[in-house]
Amino acid sequence: MTLLFMSKIHNPAVWTAALRHHLPDLEIAIWPEVGDPSAVEFALVWSPKPGELRRYPNLKAVFSFGAGVEHIFADAELPPVPVVKVVDARLTKGLTEYVLLHVLRQHRRLDLMRRAQDQARWIGFATPDTRNTTVGIMGLGEIGRDAAFALVHLGFRVAGWSRTPKDVPGVEGFHGPGGLDAFLKLSRFLVCLLPLTPDTRGILNRERLALLPRGAHLINAGRGPLVVDEDLIAALDSGHIASATLDVFHREPLPPAHAFWSHPKVTVTPHNASDTVPDSVAAQIADNIRRAKRG
Amino acid sequence: MTLLFMSKIHNPAVWTAALRHHLPDLEIAIWPEVGDPSAVEFALVWSPKPGELRRYPNLKAVFSFGAGVEHIFADAELPPVPVVKVVDARLTKGLTEYVLLHVLRQHRRLDLMRRAQDQARWIGFATPDTRNTTVGIMGLGEIGRDAAFALVHLGFRVAGWSRTPKDVPGVEGFHGPGGLDAFLKLSRFLVCLLPLTPDTRGILNRERLALLPRGAHLINAGRGPLVVDEDLIAALDSGHIASATLDVFHREPLPPAHAFWSHPKVTVTPHNASDTVPDSVAAQIADNIRRAKRG
Repeated sequence: MTLLFMSKIHNPAVWTAALRHHLPDLEIAIWPEVGDPSAVEFALVWSPKPGELRRYPNLKAVFSFGAGVEHIFADAELPPVPVVKVVDARLTKGLTEYVLLHVLRQHRRLDLMRRAQDQARWIGFATPDTRNTTVGIMGLGEIGRDAAFALVHLGFRVAGWSRTPKDVPGVEGFHGPGGLDAFLKLSRFLVCLLPLTPDTRGILNRERLALLPRGAHLINAGRGPLVVDEDLIAALDSGHIASATLDVFHREPLPPAHAFWSHPKVTVTPHNASDTVPDSVAAQIADNIRRAKRG
Repeated sequence: MTLLFMSKIHNPAVWTAALRHHLPDLEIAIWPEVGDPSAVEFALVWSPKPGELRRYPNLKAVFSFGAGVEHIFADAELPPVPVVKVVDARLTKGLTEYVLLHVLRQHRRLDLMRRAQDQARWIGFATPDTRNTTVGIMGLGEIGRDAAFALVHLGFRVAGWSRTPKDVPGVEGFHGPGGLDAFLKLSRFLVCLLPLTPDTRGILNRERLALLPRGAHLINAGRGPLVVDEDLIAALDSGHIASATLDVFHREPLPPAHAFWSHPKVTVTPHNASDTVPDSVAAQIADNIRRAKRG
């Protein structure tokens, strides 16, 4: 039983150790040094080379390193085997941290405080009231629900938008194309945690950004291509959007010449809103492989 | 029935409106224009002038604008009437926000990210794991417990220290002078929410700060005099303490020449970690006044 490891961004030594810990009998082939393709029954991949996975006649399942799987489905020749995404509690918590940190940073005007400190100025600045502030979360999967819980605890009004109706305690739910406009109009903070699909690509374009309340803050920790970059920059420059905090981009690493790097209203983080933890993911993969072997 | 309003930092118009909304029959005297001292039955105060409150022979209770009451007990001639502190849910939430924001800001190394962005550098920086990070909370009243709940939800290890034993779900409890050293040794983040009393004044001095793990972060949103300023600055300069985020000071506003303003490892906020909300506080005061009138 061989697992094919195929990623340019994950450390094979770390992952091999984590997988062996949970599956001592597993053979691991580090792509492109694969050996006999017919021995490969499982693949753990990130952005696999298109057409590559069809070369393994006995492939039973493909695992993603993260919560996203669009990098796998981008392969037009993907064989018809289950694609398994990872739901890692640590991954969820990391994203909730990121959302809280960046919502609170803007809500509590950390940059304004910093400038006042630089001038040794004790400014009178009242604590804003979360109860008058709506955070809209696009995407109410595991991660969106966890972030919503933390925001509700702080007293924020939380709205959520998802493809299909979802009932999340304390969250005002909106869904589908019909619910999107009303949801955006409420969202003083817009937190985007959507997966990238043909329906969501470019969803945050000029028309949609214009629906946000003036002075809204955007946090995108979903995928870069959900946003139309030029439309976002125009909305920031016009003052309609007050800030954008971006962890994901059309191209990663974000090219050095991209306008986001130096835009005064943009915070760039290097796609590290969250990380999968090898040991936790390896345990899930081991579980899935054992179940697959049992049928 | 007259309530005496005595504060240099609260807006009399806002508070008068809030109080009248809940107690339409209340007379409100804005100090120092008091009229007949014998008509005053209640006082709502912040840092009252020492010796002033004993001038009101029919005073039945003194209300504080906030959770702290030491600014009232500082009056050596305070008459022997009940002193009532405000427990405002908004006050608690504001402090929980402050604690989360500043813990996460250091935990997620926001300043490092900012510098990387200034250089258009996409740095490889893994999300640190909250499960290996202990936040120690000094003071487990309403506010400490609420902050602990939010931190536990994010997966942090949380330790708590209080004068008397307190059992808080998910929090490793320490108490009294005997428990302080062990508590400090664990606390990578030290969040100080203590009230100021003769026992707590100067509690964060050289010896105690030295017990924190090297590279610890301090957040003080309790009271300024809990900290010995020179000892904190020495610990920051030696590198033992990595950062200090301070909302409270020995003197407020913090004097322009104080070393904290320009210290590269200190964040100064203008005692606005949280605010009481007039309407909510007025409702509580009205409740207390009605109860006092009924005996």
